[in-house]
Amino acid sequence: MRIIGIDPGSSATGWGVIERAGSRLLHVAHGTVRPARGTPLPARLAALHAALCEVIARERPDAACVERVFVAASPRAALVLGQARGVALAAAAAAGLPVSEYSPSQIKQAVTGSGAAGKQQVQLMVARLLALAAAPRSDAADALAAALCHGQAGPLAALAGAAAPRRRGRVRAGRFVLRQAR
Amino acid sequence: MRIIGIDPGSSATGWGVIERAGSRLLHVAHGTVRPARGTPLPARLAALHAALCEVIARERPDAACVERVFVAASPRAALVLGQARGVALAAAAAAGLPVSEYSPSQIKQAVTGSGAAGKQQVQLMVARLLALAAAPRSDAADALAAALCHGQAGPLAALAGAAAPRRRGRVRAGRFVLRQAR
Repeated sequence: MRIIGIDPGSSATGWGVIERAGSRLLHVAHGTVRPARGTPLPARLAALHAALCEVIARERPDAACVERVFVAASPRAALVLGQARGVALAAAAAAGLPVSEYSPSQIKQAVTGSGAAGKQQVQLMVARLLALAAAPRSDAADALAAALCHGQAGPLAALAGAAAPRRRGRVRAGRFVLRQAR
Repeated sequence: MRIIGIDPGSSATGWGVIERAGSRLLHVAHGTVRPARGTPLPARLAALHAALCEVIARERPDAACVERVFVAASPRAALVLGQARGVALAAAAAAGLPVSEYSPSQIKQAVTGSGAAGKQQVQLMVARLLALAAAPRSDAADALAAALCHGQAGPLAALAGAAAPRRRGRVRAGRFVLRQAR
């Protein structure tokens, strides 16, 4: 089972693909889509859509995972983020992928053991968990972290059925850290 | 020259295509994209993208026009609107259409002569200006109004060059109402 995590942003969108092989989570690929500065917004969004469709066609994930957004700083920031996020969700769903969402704290907890971890901590733990030679850029690291959160969640989520997402997230996070520590 | 106006919304997205033939603006087609309720958001956004791409391929507009969003009521509302808006902008730009934006008051002024017109006034004036048998639904009427605003703006905008958009809008609006009243 392959999972793509996507971290949409107004200027750069990170993506990361992992594969779950038995109980192991392996790195497949990651990258950042960064349309040329100065390009008009509609063309940047079209480029983002095309790039994500291309990544999905190439890496063939079975599921997608995007960070849930609670409250952006301002309506303006929320609108700008929403535009990139809408394009990312549409690209994933157009490929027939089920899309899961996790809160930022669920994702941080899953990879670092703390829901309040900083960006650098996430980058370092993602690199360590996936045995990468170097820490990925922050947006790609966040995307890989989302994929790891979902990859870990899968088996438990299936068992847990309709349990509250937040509670499931905590349980998953615990198992994940435990397993990685062995 | 054909223009598509798009009015993206979280539950329904209106679109309308007009054609400029000399100094006349003619109705071509309009409609509303309304993904099934209960469909998950990513699938709704993918359906919106596919529907707009299909409309653009079928109606072959030369330019697109979307209402500019200033400040949404809340960050939550802005995020939701932004997601649909991002998909609409990406679909238009993917087809190679230049995308213009006008403020809500520019659009209202262009079709009704008042920047503070109500939704019903816009619906009635759009129907009258385009000689429609019945007033279109509100979202399609807003999309047609955006297209009319741009259709009227074209020749003057070319003359005006880099003048301030807000001022250009007022000038366009004046010409439009005048021409229609003849």
